[in-house]
Amino acid sequence: MKKEMNRNKKPFEIRTDLAVEERESFPGDGGEISGVSLREWTEPESRIKMTEVRILNERGSAAMRKPVGVYLTLEIDSMTNKDESELALISEELSRQILRHAVGLLAEAPRSGPIHILIAGLGNPSVTPDSLGPKVARKLQITRQLEHQYGNHFCQSQNLPVISAIVPGVMAQTGMETSEILTGILRETHPHLLIAVDALAARSVRRLGTTIQITDTGIHPGSGVGNHRHSLTRESLGIPVLAIGVPTVVGAAAIIHDTVSCLTNALLSSPATQGLGSYLDGLTPEEQYQLIRELLEPEFGSLYVTPPDADELISTVSATVSEGINQALFDIPKIISDIG
Amino acid sequence: MKKEMNRNKKPFEIRTDLAVEERESFPGDGGEISGVSLREWTEPESRIKMTEVRILNERGSAAMRKPVGVYLTLEIDSMTNKDESELALISEELSRQILRHAVGLLAEAPRSGPIHILIAGLGNPSVTPDSLGPKVARKLQITRQLEHQYGNHFCQSQNLPVISAIVPGVMAQTGMETSEILTGILRETHPHLLIAVDALAARSVRRLGTTIQITDTGIHPGSGVGNHRHSLTRESLGIPVLAIGVPTVVGAAAIIHDTVSCLTNALLSSPATQGLGSYLDGLTPEEQYQLIRELLEPEFGSLYVTPPDADELISTVSATVSEGINQALFDIPKIISDIG
Amino acid sequence: MKKEMNRNKKPFEIRTDLAVEERESFPGDGGEISGVSLREWTEPESRIKMTEVRILNERGSAAMRKPVGVYLTLEIDSMTNKDESELALISEELSRQILRHAVGLLAEAPRSGPIHILIAGLGNPSVTPDSLGPKVARKLQITRQLEHQYGNHFCQSQNLPVISAIVPGVMAQTGMETSEILTGILRETHPHLLIAVDALAARSVRRLGTTIQITDTGIHPGSGVGNHRHSLTRESLGIPVLAIGVPTVVGAAAIIHDTVSCLTNALLSSPATQGLGSYLDGLTPEEQYQLIRELLEPEFGSLYVTPPDADELISTVSATVSEGINQALFDIPKIISDIG
Amino acid sequence: MKKEMNRNKKPFEIRTDLAVEERESFPGDGGEISGVSLREWTEPESRIKMTEVRILNERGSAAMRKPVGVYLTLEIDSMTNKDESELALISEELSRQILRHAVGLLAEAPRSGPIHILIAGLGNPSVTPDSLGPKVARKLQITRQLEHQYGNHFCQSQNLPVISAIVPGVMAQTGMETSEILTGILRETHPHLLIAVDALAARSVRRLGTTIQITDTGIHPGSGVGNHRHSLTRESLGIPVLAIGVPTVVGAAAIIHDTVSCLTNALLSSPATQGLGSYLDGLTPEEQYQLIRELLEPEFGSLYVTPPDADELISTVSATVSEGINQALFDIPKIISDIG
Repeated sequence: MKKEMNRNKKPFEIRTDLAVEERESFPGDGGEISGVSLREWTEPESRIKMTEVRILNERGSAAMRKPVGVYLTLEIDSMTNKDESELALISEELSRQILRHAVGLLAEAPRSGPIHILIAGLGNPSVTPDSLGPKVARKLQITRQLEHQYGNHFCQSQNLPVISAIVPGVMAQTGMETSEILTGILRETHPHLLIAVDALAARSVRRLGTTIQITDTGIHPGSGVGNHRHSLTRESLGIPVLAIGVPTVVGAAAIIHDTVSCLTNALLSSPATQGLGSYLDGLTPEEQYQLIRELLEPEFGSLYVTPPDADELISTVSATVSEGINQALFDIPKIISDIG
Repeated sequence: MKKEMNRNKKPFEIRTDLAVEERESFPGDGGEISGVSLREWTEPESRIKMTEVRILNERGSAAMRKPVGVYLTLEIDSMTNKDESELALISEELSRQILRHAVGLLAEAPRSGPIHILIAGLGNPSVTPDSLGPKVARKLQITRQLEHQYGNHFCQSQNLPVISAIVPGVMAQTGMETSEILTGILRETHPHLLIAVDALAARSVRRLGTTIQITDTGIHPGSGVGNHRHSLTRESLGIPVLAIGVPTVVGAAAIIHDTVSCLTNALLSSPATQGLGSYLDGLTPEEQYQLIRELLEPEFGSLYVTPPDADELISTVSATVSEGINQALFDIPKIISDIG
Repeated sequence: MKKEMNRNKKPFEIRTDLAVEERESFPGDGGEISGVSLREWTEPESRIKMTEVRILNERGSAAMRKPVGVYLTLEIDSMTNKDESELALISEELSRQILRHAVGLLAEAPRSGPIHILIAGLGNPSVTPDSLGPKVARKLQITRQLEHQYGNHFCQSQNLPVISAIVPGVMAQTGMETSEILTGILRETHPHLLIAVDALAARSVRRLGTTIQITDTGIHPGSGVGNHRHSLTRESLGIPVLAIGVPTVVGAAAIIHDTVSCLTNALLSSPATQGLGSYLDGLTPEEQYQLIRELLEPEFGSLYVTPPDADELISTVSATVSEGINQALFDIPKIISDIG
Repeated sequence: MKKEMNRNKKPFEIRTDLAVEERESFPGDGGEISGVSLREWTEPESRIKMTEVRILNERGSAAMRKPVGVYLTLEIDSMTNKDESELALISEELSRQILRHAVGLLAEAPRSGPIHILIAGLGNPSVTPDSLGPKVARKLQITRQLEHQYGNHFCQSQNLPVISAIVPGVMAQTGMETSEILTGILRETHPHLLIAVDALAARSVRRLGTTIQITDTGIHPGSGVGNHRHSLTRESLGIPVLAIGVPTVVGAAAIIHDTVSCLTNALLSSPATQGLGSYLDGLTPEEQYQLIRELLEPEFGSLYVTPPDADELISTVSATVSEGINQALFDIPKIISDIG
C-alpha cells in the first residue's frame, strides 16, 4: 500500500493555473476526489471539448489548492494552425460560455441602470508571453465613453452594455498592486462585473495556447505568468469577478518534474529496473527535491518554457479571446432584459 | 489704425500647447502683454536656452488662453542628432528644473511620512506620436513596490522617494476619463505630487522634439495630442500637478494658417502687391476661415504633421525625459531633508 | 486666354505617386491629354470604383511625368472603418486585378519549369508610414522553401506557384541601393516576375489608405515614401515588375499648395476679390514659390502629413493587400495551365 | 574503468552553439582533448573573463563537432543588471577583440580600394529571442551610401570604412536560404569581409545573455536559434566570415538532460544510492534516450527555455554588441593603414 500512498502525493510542487491540470495530477482517471466534481462533454456546434471542474467545499479546495468555484476549460488542438472560420467557431463557443457565466454572476449582483462591465487586461505589455491580457483589452470594443459624449442614458437607450477597460500594468512598472489600481477605479466608476484576462502558467507544454479557462473565482495570489500577489475576487473587490485565462508558459520546474516522473515510470515498467523505479517513487517530495535542488535554485525557478512562435501565438489567441468577449458582452443586455 | 488692431488678433485659431508659442503669436517682440511676464536666459552649465512665461492674473490668462501659472521651456536645437553625452547634459538640466519645481510644489503640500510621487504617462501607447507619456512612464525607476516587499518604512530608511507610475490609456481604449482613473488611484495610494507627462501639439514644425515645457498648472481640457477632455489640476485632484510635455505633432491647420500668414507678409512687403496683402490682413478671422474652409473640414482637422523619423524621435526624447525625471526624483529626499 | 493658359500649368511641383492624381491635376474633367487614355468603371462584384490611366507614348509620359504603361487604381472609401467581410471583398477584387496583370506580364516572359514570383516589400520597417511593403511581405504565404525541403519539382507537382519574398530595407540602413540587393537575388534565384509593394505619397489627404494602385511600369526614381533613387523595372532588372502601392503620406508641401489653390479659387469666385484671385492665379510657379518659399525650406520639405491612426491604418491595409496577393498567386498556376 | 569510459561520452545529444560549452562537456577540468587547445585569461582593462578554444585539426573537429578555427568567448556575469558605464566597458572589450580578428582576416583577403565590410543580421526579426542579429544590424552606423551620395572615393578620402548591412530574414519568410541572398549581394557589392551576427542556443541557462562568442569559422548548418541549413563560410562565400553570437535560448532538451545528470550525480554521491546512480551512469546514450523519449517527442524538441525578461535582454545585448562592432569598424582603416 505504500506505493499507492506515495503515488497519491505530488512529488514537488509544480505550479499550474489550470484546475483541469491540477485535477489530472491525481492518480486514477475515474477516481473521485472528495469535494471536487468533474464533467466532460463536447459542444455540438463547435465540436470543442469542454471540461468543468467544480470545487465544492473546503476539502476539495485543500486538495486542489484552488478556491471553491467553477472552472470551465475549452480545449482546442491548436490555435496557430487554424484558419479564420475555425477561429470564428472558437470565438463563438467562448462567447456562449462567457455569456452564460457573466449572466449568472450579474443576476446575483445588486444593480440599477444599465449593465456596466469593466475588463482588466492583466500582465506586462512589454513581455511577450505575459502580454495576453493587455492585448485582449486593447482589442475590445469600448462603449462607456459614449455616455460621456451623448449623455448618461445613451447605452441603455441603444440597448448597449456599458463597457470599460483598463491595462493596469505590473507592480515592477507601477509600484502599485493591481488590486489597489482596480479598487480605485471601481470606486470611481462602479461597474457591476469585472472580467479579468490573464496569461497563465501550465504544467504541460501541450496546453500552451490550446486551453481557455473561465472561472467565477477571480484571480488569486500566486497565479498568472506575473504571479499576482493580491487577490481580485468578489470578497476583495465587492463585485463578482470572471477570470479568463490561456496558458502561455510552462515553468522550467515543470519540465524537470516531468523528467523525473517519466524516468520513474520507465524504470518501474521493466522488471530489471523496478527496484530503482520504486526507490525514486518512494522518495518524499522533499527527498526528490534534494536530489535535483541544484536545478531548482533561484535563477532557474524564474525561467519558463515558451514556444518559438510565442509572438504569433499571443497575437492569434488575443484576437480570438477579445472577439469572444466582445460578442458575449453585446449579447448581455438582450439576455438580461429577456430574463428581467 | 485698423491695421494695427487687425494684426493684434489671431487669424483663425491654431492650437498650441506651448505657452512660449502662444506668447510669440502676439506681435511686437519686445511688446508687453498685460498680466504676462517673460524671462529668457541661457543656463551656464548646459548652454540650454530657457524661457519662462508667467501668466500672472486673469487678464493674462484670457489673452494667452492658458491658466495662471509658470511655464518653463528648455529649447534644444534637435535631440535626434545628439550623441549620448549631449543627451546627458539635457537630462541633467531637465532634472535640475524638475527638481526646483517639484520641491516648490511639495513645500506647499501637507505631508507626513516619506515623499510619494505618482507619475502618469498620458496618451495612447499604440499611436507613435502620442506614445511619449507611456514610453517615459515605462522607463522610470519605480520604488513603491519596495514598501510592499520590505515594509512601510523601507524607502524612508534608505532615503529614497516613494515612486509609483501609471499609464492610464486614452478614453477610446478605456471608456474612462483619465481624471476618473487618476482620482481612483489617488484615493487608494495618497501620493503628494502628480507628475503628468504628455505629448504636445505645437504650431511650428521646428518645435517638434526640440522643446520641453514644464508647468505647475497641470493638464487642461483640449491639451495634448489626444486632446484631454478633463483637467488634471490641483483643483480637480487635490494634490499639486507638475506637467512635462514635448511637442511631437503640428496640426495640419497650423500649416494652412502659416501659409496664409506667409503669403500675406510676402504680399505686404512689396509695393506692387501691398494692396492684396492688406486685403488678406484686413480680413477678420471668420472671413479668413471662410476663404479656406474647404481645407479645414472635419477629416482634415484631425490630421497632423509629424516628421518621418517620429519613431526614433519618440524613442530618444522619452529616454531623455525619463532620465531627467529619475534624477530629479532621487534627489528630492536629500533636498527636502536639507530644507526641513 | 491668359487665364486658361495659366490654369493649365501646375503651380509648383507637388509630388504624387498616383497616376490618377497626376491626371486630375489637369484642368477640365473631360479634357483629353495627348498620349494619355482614361477609363473609369465600377466592378460589378465588389462595387469598387476602378480607374485605369494608360500612358501611351512619350508625349503622355512627359505630360504626366510618369513612364509609359498602365496604372490601375481601386478606390475604396476607407479601409479602417470596414468589417472583415467588406475587407474580404476588397482583397478579392485586388486579387482579380493582380492576377490579370501578373498573367499578362508572365505571358511575355520566357520561362521553363514552374512559375516563380519574388515579392519585394520596399520601405523602412521601423518607420510606421513607410512600413507597408515590409508588413505585406511578412504576411505572405511563401512556398519556395518547400522545393528545398521536398525536392525541385515539389511545387510543380502540387500545382503551386514558387513564391519567395524579401524585405531589402532602405539605403540608410543597408548602405545599398534596393536595386543592388534585388539584382543579386535575381541572379541567384531566377524568378520570372517581381512584385514590388510600397507605401506611396499622395497629394490629397483623402487618398490615404483608400486607393490601391497597380502598375506594370515598376518602381521609378523619386517614388515611394522613402524616395527610391534607382529604378526597379524590366529594363533595369531583366524581368517584368508589377508594382502595388497604397498612399500612406501626403507631403506637407501638398497642403501648402492646396491652401494657395483654395485661396485663389475663393478669391476668384467673388466679384469683389476677383482681381486678387487673378493676381495669384496669374503668377508663374516660380513666383508662387517665391511667395511662400520660407515654408518650403529644406526641413519642411521632408515632413509629411499622416493620419492619427497611421499604425492601425498600415495594419489593416497590409493585411488586405497581402491577402489579395496571396489569392492571386495561388490562382496563377491554374490560369497559366488553362492558357498553356 | 567502465565508469571512466562512460563518463567520457555525451549522454544524449544536446545542442550548443558555444565551443566553450562543448569543451566543458568533456570530463576532467584540466584534461586535454587531442586537437583542441584551451586558453583562459582576464582582460586587464575590462576585467572580463576570456576563453579561447582553438580547434586545431580534424581530430579536434570530430571531438568538438565544430569546424577547425578559433572560438573566443567573453564571459560577463549579466548584461541586464549593468549600468551604462559597465555596458560601455563590455562594448570596448568586444570592440578590441572584433578589431583584432577582423584585421587578421582582412590581412589574408586580396583587396584593392577602401575596406568594405558587410554585416548580416541573421534570424527572425519577429521572434523575440531570434531577433538579436536583425536588431544589431539596424543599430549600426552604415557608410556605403555615402559613396552613392558623394562619389566612389568618399570613404577612403575620409579614412572611413565602407560599411553595409543586410537583414536577410529566415527561410520560412523568404523562401530563400540565407546563403542564396548573401551570395547574390556579395556578387553585386564585393565586400572584403562578412560579419554575421546571430542569436545562439546554449546548453546552460546561466549562459543566456552573458556570453559573447566570436569565431573566424563563420556560420555552420544546424547552428543559431533558427537552425541555419547552409553554411556561411569563406569556402562557401569566397570571403572571410567573422561570426558574433550571444546565447538567447536553451533547448528544453538541455534541461531534461541536466535533470538526468543532476539525479545521477546525486545518487552516486551517497553510498546508499550509489548502485542506482551507477545504473543510470552506465546506460548508453541510446538507453538514456529510451527512458525519457516521451519527453523528447517532436513538439517538445522545438521548444526552448527563455528568461522572462527576454525582450529587455535582447534590447540591452543588441545595443552593446552593435556598439562594439561600430567602434571596431571605425578603427579598422587606421589600423590597416598603420600596418600597410
